[in-house]
Amino acid sequence: MDKLLFTPGPLTTSLTVKEAMLRDLGSRDFEFIEIINYIRNDLLRLAKVSRQDGYESVIIQGSGTFGIESVISSVISKSDNLLIIINGAYGERISKIAEVHMIRQTRMVFAENEWPDLSKIEEVLQSNPLITHVAVVHCETTTGIVNPIEAIGILCQFYRKTYIVDAMSSFGAIPINVKESFIDFLISSSNKCIEGVPGFSFVITNKEKLMEAEGKARSLVLDLYAQWKGLEFDGQFRFTPPTHVILAFDQALKELEIEGGIDGRAHRYKENYQKLIAGMRSLGFQEYLEPEKQGYIITSFLYPQHPNFSFKAFYKKLNDKGYVIYPGKLSHADCFRIGNIGKIYGDDIDLLLDAIKEVLQEMEVLENIQKIAVS
Amino acid sequence: MDKLLFTPGPLTTSLTVKEAMLRDLGSRDFEFIEIINYIRNDLLRLAKVSRQDGYESVIIQGSGTFGIESVISSVISKSDNLLIIINGAYGERISKIAEVHMIRQTRMVFAENEWPDLSKIEEVLQSNPLITHVAVVHCETTTGIVNPIEAIGILCQFYRKTYIVDAMSSFGAIPINVKESFIDFLISSSNKCIEGVPGFSFVITNKEKLMEAEGKARSLVLDLYAQWKGLEFDGQFRFTPPTHVILAFDQALKELEIEGGIDGRAHRYKENYQKLIAGMRSLGFQEYLEPEKQGYIITSFLYPQHPNFSFKAFYKKLNDKGYVIYPGKLSHADCFRIGNIGKIYGDDIDLLLDAIKEVLQEMEVLENIQKIAVS
Repeated sequence: MDKLLFTPGPLTTSLTVKEAMLRDLGSRDFEFIEIINYIRNDLLRLAKVSRQDGYESVIIQGSGTFGIESVISSVISKSDNLLIIINGAYGERISKIAEVHMIRQTRMVFAENEWPDLSKIEEVLQSNPLITHVAVVHCETTTGIVNPIEAIGILCQFYRKTYIVDAMSSFGAIPINVKESFIDFLISSSNKCIEGVPGFSFVITNKEKLMEAEGKARSLVLDLYAQWKGLEFDGQFRFTPPTHVILAFDQALKELEIEGGIDGRAHRYKENYQKLIAGMRSLGFQEYLEPEKQGYIITSFLYPQHPNFSFKAFYKKLNDKGYVIYPGKLSHADCFRIGNIGKIYGDDIDLLLDAIKEVLQEMEVLENIQKIAVS
Repeated sequence: MDKLLFTPGPLTTSLTVKEAMLRDLGSRDFEFIEIINYIRNDLLRLAKVSRQDGYESVIIQGSGTFGIESVISSVISKSDNLLIIINGAYGERISKIAEVHMIRQTRMVFAENEWPDLSKIEEVLQSNPLITHVAVVHCETTTGIVNPIEAIGILCQFYRKTYIVDAMSSFGAIPINVKESFIDFLISSSNKCIEGVPGFSFVITNKEKLMEAEGKARSLVLDLYAQWKGLEFDGQFRFTPPTHVILAFDQALKELEIEGGIDGRAHRYKENYQKLIAGMRSLGFQEYLEPEKQGYIITSFLYPQHPNFSFKAFYKKLNDKGYVIYPGKLSHADCFRIGNIGKIYGDDIDLLLDAIKEVLQEMEVLENIQKIAVS
């Protein structure tokens, strides 16, 4: 029995998703080409758009960051200027990618526990006509905060900016209407809330904006337009695709439908989340974020202020019991993270909570934690 | 039962390699980190080098081309000049990558059915002191020709050039001594002759040369030095790794050992190859390459000059019988390709030959092909 993963990914997936990989299909096989086509269409449907509406989907192999770099390095010219709204490590990563490609950027950095300030964003958009693109992370996995992508989209639409959303850990779990949110490029990955295995990212894109990317790419393998064109031309990847990972994703999409689509999955994740925070609070833990800013994807908990608590020991003991949690990634607070996503259910959360309680007892932390939990 | 793949990859792999993917491991899991470490060391051993000798291995996710672009875009400066020795589509691809990154290049193009001319290469190296790097493809999958990487390596050593070898379809099947061939960067991929599944490439590198790459990369995700540094720092990938693909590769490496390592595998592939060409010749087919230039990885066969022969129909009929062959990729001749690599044995070659015979009969090609086989 493998450990249960309470992380931002790779996640625990169903056995049937993994079993879909017990086949070797040729990358030019008719059946495989049909699977790629099915996936590309289904991703559009999940994003509530269609080809008829003027949207396209592109699969880029590699982790989610490969997809982000593909978009940033393929669609932004030297003369453009990218506004990056940052309140965590993944916003910073977009900034780093822009820097590597020497793309002009305007950084707006907000506190990791705060939503980006819409009026300040509007001020910047109003006073900086040179800004051409805006990028933001939907669910900042750094903390678990869910940023207001719809409201930022309305600003992008009003000020006519191309809008890029990193929806890595939200797509499939939080309903997103790409068109109504005025998103031009949305990026997510195979191993997040669709519950496939890691190996590729995908981009839902406004076709008109995609067409403008022709010839702009700074890389061969990460050329978003060329990858789309290849897929359109003969249904094939330009370069050997991760066939097994794609077969798993195909199965994962089918299982998402059986669960009731994004709404059904959101329901389960929310239940996981509510059970988790109730249990953690009763053990004396406190969340890093205010509840209204906290999404149901992943939660950051502050370290308990108890001299016996060591995250390393806590992590190791939980790991030995078969439960994998995630370290923190915050600049200003000592936190660890627990994810609610992947093939995990309320019963698994109960098991995790029991294990956490046991570990706290073993560490002799539990008896005092409720009293001195940080405020 | 899946079709048998007689292609350059993705290949037919063993069931046990695929079954290794029936697990979800966290990307920071101790066990997973040990597996990465094992793989990195075993790749060095297969290349007949070690860390003590001053060599390192780096895993780059994505197909083989991602590995090639990682090397080309990470280790060559603006002031450098890359000599690319080209006798097929994969040499051209290196040239294309250099072009995208605006790297100065000197192209030496040879016929697709000829070995690169060593004396001409020496002339160019002698008369062009500005050349800093040399790149060549070991087995050009375009035709199946195996290029003399050792002899080119001696020239690189003599003229003090950094030497890059694309060993995508040869590593694991043809013994290569990286040190004695003076190779500074060798690139191969998970889904070729190690018989893993597709999803990553890897680079065997001279550490001294790798160190010189610090800060030179033109991409975040393809930064070879940073990827190495991340792996060294905590054994982890910088970005979510394709965990399942890596588990399959770990199993594939173990099965390679059981088969007798690279020598054992080479033996099986050679037998496949000999059986294939004997059978194909007896059916009237002719190889595109002269036998001494032909490797045992993949073989290009000329289309039979028979009015009833259509490659599309031939391919489709074989495919329907469960045998996947590969179209040609040549500029100047009509060929198709048959691979000898992957988990296929002499008996599978027999089955393929029987199927080809049947298809030729169905197409009413066989009765005449022997007589009018092209010369």
